[in-house]
Amino acid sequence: MNTGLKIVLSGPSGSGKGTIVRELIKDEQFLLSISATTRAPRQGEEEGVHYFFKTREEFEGMIEKSELLEYAQFCGNYYGTPKDFIEDSVKNGKDVILEIEVEGAMQIKKIYPEAIFIFVVPPSLTELENRLVGRATEKPDVIEARLARAKEELALYHHYDYVVVNDRLVEALDEIKCIVRSEKLKSSHYKEKIENVIYN
Amino acid sequence: MNTGLKIVLSGPSGSGKGTIVRELIKDEQFLLSISATTRAPRQGEEEGVHYFFKTREEFEGMIEKSELLEYAQFCGNYYGTPKDFIEDSVKNGKDVILEIEVEGAMQIKKIYPEAIFIFVVPPSLTELENRLVGRATEKPDVIEARLARAKEELALYHHYDYVVVNDRLVEALDEIKCIVRSEKLKSSHYKEKIENVIYN
Repeated sequence: MNTGLKIVLSGPSGSGKGTIVRELIKDEQFLLSISATTRAPRQGEEEGVHYFFKTREEFEGMIEKSELLEYAQFCGNYYGTPKDFIEDSVKNGKDVILEIEVEGAMQIKKIYPEAIFIFVVPPSLTELENRLVGRATEKPDVIEARLARAKEELALYHHYDYVVVNDRLVEALDEIKCIVRSEKLKSSHYKEKIENVIYN
Repeated sequence: MNTGLKIVLSGPSGSGKGTIVRELIKDEQFLLSISATTRAPRQGEEEGVHYFFKTREEFEGMIEKSELLEYAQFCGNYYGTPKDFIEDSVKNGKDVILEIEVEGAMQIKKIYPEAIFIFVVPPSLTELENRLVGRATEKPDVIEARLARAKEELALYHHYDYVVVNDRLVEALDEIKCIVRSEKLKSSHYKEKIENVIYN
């Protein structure tokens, strides 16, 4: 079986990366990386599906044993990305998607330089503003701050391998699937296959 | 307008790269690099379509002025690849395909390191042998020599960016189109677009 790929999907808030990920994982080739957390499960949340639920002691043990790709505290709870789940899934031939904020993505590049880094961007800042306003969850000054942040984050595009402009969702999904397919055709993955052709 | 890509398509004799190229250029996004030659035009051959027809003096002038990517003599005539045609086509947004033998491809890598190198391989040596026998133009000992040569050439796969196994033609074409699409999504091509998003 071929090893799967690690795919880091990142982009500014409002780029639509969340929607893209939800659509991608409808295809069973893809698997979304599952986070570990110390917060209590909410109704309907299942262990190993939505999160790996841990006690504080367990979580801190994972930190000590470097079992997490990255972690952070939020509202008094730990959240983190367990490496094991990613490594096991990739070994089983799945392409694992890590949906991560821009800052976190830059961290992961140091640990997984072999991962494919895809930067999802909005077609324009006007469109980004419309999307943020459309959410109707934020006040105008928060939206202003998010737009300013998005500009800063967009300037980091060159740290990624690929850029996908999320204008039409269908096209963006197509492009990402094409990137993944093409990455698997890279000659570095062909040692075994070519040797089979030569020696069989 | 976006600049086109230079695509070097190579592979052992019998890999089917010729058929792939003929199918690819049915899509007007692709343009096949046109060779220059000193041989006389055959019936139906048009200047600038099949070849650029040159006198010996003109051809040797091109050699002196380094206007050729590579050249060789065959049956007393010169054959070569003019750089100008490639450069101009790429500037006009076309993806230019260079169909080249394995040895020539390795030479071109030194001149066009930015080109995309795709290695077309047969699914197996048995299949390669069937294809060579199927052509019915060669004697058994010539076929033996070609198979031996193919093995040597296959071992050079790691000098290429991508490997496409030409088992089913439709799939191979699909994979090559996917590679080209994906290459255009590389972040290095996005400087201008991202700046447009940030500053407009």
